[in-house]
Amino acid sequence: MATLLLLPGDGIGPEVCAEVRRVAAALVPSLVVEEAIYGGASYDAHGTPLTDEVRDRALASDAVLMGAVGGPNWADAPRHLRPEAGLLNLRKAMNVYANLRPAYCFEALAGASSLKTELVSGLDIMFVRELVGGVYFGEPRGIDVLPDGQKKGYDTALYTTSEIERAGRVAFELARGRKNKVHSAEKSNVMESGLLWKQVITELHAREYPDVELEHILADNCAMQLVRAPKQFDVIVTDNLFGDILSDAAAMLTGSLGMLPSAAIGDPNKPGLYEPIHGSAPDIAGKGLANPLAAILSFEMALRWSLKEVEAADRLLAAVKGALDAGARTRDLGGELSTVQMGDAVLCRI
Amino acid sequence: MATLLLLPGDGIGPEVCAEVRRVAAALVPSLVVEEAIYGGASYDAHGTPLTDEVRDRALASDAVLMGAVGGPNWADAPRHLRPEAGLLNLRKAMNVYANLRPAYCFEALAGASSLKTELVSGLDIMFVRELVGGVYFGEPRGIDVLPDGQKKGYDTALYTTSEIERAGRVAFELARGRKNKVHSAEKSNVMESGLLWKQVITELHAREYPDVELEHILADNCAMQLVRAPKQFDVIVTDNLFGDILSDAAAMLTGSLGMLPSAAIGDPNKPGLYEPIHGSAPDIAGKGLANPLAAILSFEMALRWSLKEVEAADRLLAAVKGALDAGARTRDLGGELSTVQMGDAVLCRI
Ligand SMILES: CC(C)[C@H](C(=O)O)[C@@H](O)C(=O)O
Ligand SMILES: CC(C)[C@H](C(=O)O)[C@@H](O)C(=O)O
Repeated sequence: MATLLLLPGDGIGPEVCAEVRRVAAALVPSLVVEEAIYGGASYDAHGTPLTDEVRDRALASDAVLMGAVGGPNWADAPRHLRPEAGLLNLRKAMNVYANLRPAYCFEALAGASSLKTELVSGLDIMFVRELVGGVYFGEPRGIDVLPDGQKKGYDTALYTTSEIERAGRVAFELARGRKNKVHSAEKSNVMESGLLWKQVITELHAREYPDVELEHILADNCAMQLVRAPKQFDVIVTDNLFGDILSDAAAMLTGSLGMLPSAAIGDPNKPGLYEPIHGSAPDIAGKGLANPLAAILSFEMALRWSLKEVEAADRLLAAVKGALDAGARTRDLGGELSTVQMGDAVLCRI
Repeated sequence: MATLLLLPGDGIGPEVCAEVRRVAAALVPSLVVEEAIYGGASYDAHGTPLTDEVRDRALASDAVLMGAVGGPNWADAPRHLRPEAGLLNLRKAMNVYANLRPAYCFEALAGASSLKTELVSGLDIMFVRELVGGVYFGEPRGIDVLPDGQKKGYDTALYTTSEIERAGRVAFELARGRKNKVHSAEKSNVMESGLLWKQVITELHAREYPDVELEHILADNCAMQLVRAPKQFDVIVTDNLFGDILSDAAAMLTGSLGMLPSAAIGDPNKPGLYEPIHGSAPDIAGKGLANPLAAILSFEMALRWSLKEVEAADRLLAAVKGALDAGARTRDLGGELSTVQMGDAVLCRI
């Protein structure tokens, strides 16, 4: 029997995860849903955002779904014990090297985008962001005091051939099931790690995926093109740092940040880590105002990628679209539904 | 007598610089305008994109205005001799550490933005991008072959206290003459150089600029907010790499990439480096189709920042606005004017 480990975390995390629980019970009754403490809540209880026990339970489960971590309460926690550090450690421990971040525009919400409707209607981009390498983890890094009293802060942006290849493979495979087009974004004109990125993707493409259309694009131009004409993109593969920034910009194109899920996957027989793109939103936490759809859609990705319940995933996606088409809107979408009411709108369509 | 060194460079560079020459002659007849070969053109003639002689002439002038560099012709040149390398070397040699990049929406063009008109009408952001440090120049960097045959590509993102302070000062000073608000963008949650950036800006603000409103923002959130509600920003100060990406995304918000200038400045008694944001556009080079306004507005910034001809700068800006209000449009703006005709439209309003 498959196990899903829920890590509700902080802020609105517990509220949106409660809706995932209801959806899971209705949709896949056989799924065992467990829960563990994580993030700021774990720091408060155990002095660390990720205990060894929770990490081991994550590794032993079939999929992990996180609510949200962090918030102003933990701003003064030591850096390596902040909720965000727990997140980075969990990604690394689970070795989920490919972060799939859709920037998908639900037809019912196209009018809510900052962009003119015709530029985003039908938008469907999938980012493959490398998630366990690059400047996020490279060594050496630190802040040193120089002889003259000045400080020097430094980080290492670093990629190896195999790290780039495995992220690239995920992108090319995905593209084959979509519009067959991959953009690889880097700054090969100024970074050596970017130049290696471009070379490795070029060779991987020629060797294993010559049938997929590949375009190299500089990260700055990619940011620009995402605003100018986002529908030119299908799959975008990029490094950890550029992926963070570009996918956030793209998420906003859809006009519905409270809607967007993500999946972090690694080796096929290992659990994936699923999380909404949104943060912990401390300002509305506990008020029943949060949109649970990003978490519910993250569960949809978990069904598809880790739990191999593709048919259930399809049904869930249809239920979410149905709810939106019927006008269900939480406050972030300009409506008045509560978190639970939005959950109901999905549940009654499953 | 003041000297402006023109570096027309490649692609459409020579065409747009020719219009700057005409404008300069009409507006500031006393200005000595010189010209030198640079970029791919210099690589073809001298085997290097920036000769020592041209570098020394740049350092000895009062301002340097560049057209554009690069293009597919030089894709196979050795990396350190590419046109882009010439640009990085010139920035470094001139020590122009603060890159001012306006994302300014001309009223006459607000409708051309990808964003809904009400989100960008009146938009006026000034980026201060640190330009001679960070991952662009940090050592060590390289691509090594590992014992197992894999490759490792690496770069160093590095900032010192004084590098951050001098960029910060430019931002705070600028804000005082504008809406008095600075956003400082970094990834202090994952990068040590970003953490130092945040600390140094915080201390500089408390010590010297407590009257200016300061907000720290994560670079990923900044990308998102630029698309969501760009008018919340006044001045954004950020590092070399984030500045490259964020200012390109923001440039696109104005709907007129062919319109945007930039200034790179350093110590007040040293020459600044001025350049249009657009590239060399090899596809339309030599056809008289390029929009010369980005180059002309770069000259406007040179008048203001290096040549201390503020009154002439004001007149030039008014002439450009007048031309746009009167409907003057090159092809990139949906019109039919040639490069020279757009130059005329400005000239006849000076
Ligand atoms: C919270 C932070 C460390 C994280 C990141 O930068 O990866 C977040 O922005 C994300 O994209 O999941
Ligand atoms: C051409 C390239 C090296 C340059 C940069 O990355 O700085 C360009 O993108 C810019 O922003 O001026």
